[in-house]
Amino acid sequence: MNSPINRPIFASIHSEAFSHNLTRVRELVPNSKIWSVVKANAYGHGFESALKGLADTDGFALLDLQDARWLRSSGWEGRILLLEGLFQPSELEDVLRLNCDLVVHCENQVTWLESLQTKSLKPIQIYLKLNSGMNRLGFKPSAYRTAFHRLHSAGHEIHHMSHFANADQIDKYPTLGQQLDCFSEAIEGLHGEICLANSAAILWHRNTSGNWVRPGIMLYGASPTGNFDDIRHAHLEAVMHLKSEIIDIQLVSAGDHIGYGGRFMAPEAMRIGIIACGYADGYPRQAKDGTPVWLEVPGFEKKGVICPLAGQVAMDMLTVDLRNAPQAKIGTKVELWGKQVPVDDVARMSGTIGYELLCGLAPRVPVLLK
Amino acid sequence: MNSPINRPIFASIHSEAFSHNLTRVRELVPNSKIWSVVKANAYGHGFESALKGLADTDGFALLDLQDARWLRSSGWEGRILLLEGLFQPSELEDVLRLNCDLVVHCENQVTWLESLQTKSLKPIQIYLKLNSGMNRLGFKPSAYRTAFHRLHSAGHEIHHMSHFANADQIDKYPTLGQQLDCFSEAIEGLHGEICLANSAAILWHRNTSGNWVRPGIMLYGASPTGNFDDIRHAHLEAVMHLKSEIIDIQLVSAGDHIGYGGRFMAPEAMRIGIIACGYADGYPRQAKDGTPVWLEVPGFEKKGVICPLAGQVAMDMLTVDLRNAPQAKIGTKVELWGKQVPVDDVARMSGTIGYELLCGLAPRVPVLLK
Repeated sequence: MNSPINRPIFASIHSEAFSHNLTRVRELVPNSKIWSVVKANAYGHGFESALKGLADTDGFALLDLQDARWLRSSGWEGRILLLEGLFQPSELEDVLRLNCDLVVHCENQVTWLESLQTKSLKPIQIYLKLNSGMNRLGFKPSAYRTAFHRLHSAGHEIHHMSHFANADQIDKYPTLGQQLDCFSEAIEGLHGEICLANSAAILWHRNTSGNWVRPGIMLYGASPTGNFDDIRHAHLEAVMHLKSEIIDIQLVSAGDHIGYGGRFMAPEAMRIGIIACGYADGYPRQAKDGTPVWLEVPGFEKKGVICPLAGQVAMDMLTVDLRNAPQAKIGTKVELWGKQVPVDDVARMSGTIGYELLCGLAPRVPVLLK
Repeated sequence: MNSPINRPIFASIHSEAFSHNLTRVRELVPNSKIWSVVKANAYGHGFESALKGLADTDGFALLDLQDARWLRSSGWEGRILLLEGLFQPSELEDVLRLNCDLVVHCENQVTWLESLQTKSLKPIQIYLKLNSGMNRLGFKPSAYRTAFHRLHSAGHEIHHMSHFANADQIDKYPTLGQQLDCFSEAIEGLHGEICLANSAAILWHRNTSGNWVRPGIMLYGASPTGNFDDIRHAHLEAVMHLKSEIIDIQLVSAGDHIGYGGRFMAPEAMRIGIIACGYADGYPRQAKDGTPVWLEVPGFEKKGVICPLAGQVAMDMLTVDLRNAPQAKIGTKVELWGKQVPVDDVARMSGTIGYELLCGLAPRVPVLLK
């Protein structure tokens, strides 16, 4: 993967931003323990940097057993939660060996865990998942208690979990309030710890924080809503900075078209900067003209200036309008997202959310750990 | 990367489809040699399968010097073209050692190649790139001849190249005709081979085929336009098949909402299938409700049926309406794109083109070479 390449693109991953963001979570919910969600290769940031920057977490929550193996082999001795539990009964052996906690969300998983001989083992910590309205994974309220009692009888230790569909929305169904009511009713009288809040709930619904919270996107410095304005005052820092350079400049005339489909037409004679970054690097092809790109050029506050995307993003290149940056030249450094350009802003101009862009960083982009 | 994981998702890569598609290119342009374009890790398919399936090509065209290294170390002795040429003069040594042909698109690259002592070496095969209206990389017509003569004087062998902005369009500027006229005028009287046609031009403008063609997307069995109907009768085969399974089923009531934002509302009591594939696997988050997903169930022609996406694609899961497939159960196999569902159809429902989805296959998805 990250062997040296000739193109000037790279992503720097800032572990001190990780620890800063984790500290922010602690400040917001001081009475809850924290599952740091690092599925999808730590949202595209890589496990190595996550382990370094999030070492103070109470546990890591992830999806793939291979990631749990990597964490253990890298010396992580704390808790690990498999967010979708077992996919096959054959995985149980590894789960026990790696000492993982398990989400249980369906009947099959209960059956597999019942069949386990637990007498000589310490009980598995299970997060029983309630479908409180998201209608994706989890037991319906009517089936929840039966599952709880079956697992309890099998000797496991059971905790309660659900997932919000709209913790970042106020006008969508099911509402957070509806899901919370459903949850309270379903678990009434059952012992066990409670784990509900994702990033959006940690930021905006701290009544849900319970024993454990599960921050994901906020640890990476991006917004649960996909809108950076919503976290502008939350004091989070971008962990991934995607950078490249101008590799060529075209001087075009009024009326000239740029790139595939000729989407951008020059309104006057102007310079177009060609940047070594395309959708095969993970930059969204859907980005509209005007999507911000930051250029490091002298003569500006913060030593740089935003130039707008001009023309369709291609597989390996994108093009920007250089009229804001007469100082720009071949070799000028650019930031596609990160500290100067929130990934949320690029996502919003592309009809998606920062999560997708971070997770979609291509393997061909070299990663620099800071 | 591709170590065994627990989630049931994988991509199978069919090298016989590669060779079938290459044969189709030969049938369409029998008098041209073929640069098979394999940049971006062979459009996400991996070099190993490309080298196997495209072994009969006349050359491979790519971007990263590290990919050229891999091809040589894997025994490829044919030609290799670096599509953006040198990024740094320091790369020249590797270029000579690996015996690569070079695109030259800017002044700096000419200067670097002039400074090379070529007397004792065989000349580099250079594809001089004309900016005939794409306004991305390449020399303007007014600067083209000077670059040609400088490189020729430096002892290199020069060929002629340009790139079409709209070979798949008829109503956009610059038109293919405009670019062709510009090219003919710029190279008039200069010796050297000609390389112009991308997949769209091979399919629809065979007057452009010249000495070399540069097929990319058609080798992978997808459409240059992003619309599968445009290649339905071109007899191309999908090389990548993305597959997974149903990991859970929810029985929902009329009025229930599914997933984030509750975008899909059940019009009646119905079953929702939860599939282990999300945007962190490379499936587009922007896919609309109704995007086709193929389920392998008995009782249908071709042993399966299309079910429509129902609800927002999440990071690790997507949800489908199972009303077409009463036979579906946990463990039912699905194809997200490939033979049954053209990747173009998924792309079109997501506002993009197949290229972006193929290139965006996530490293966490295991790849099976067939």
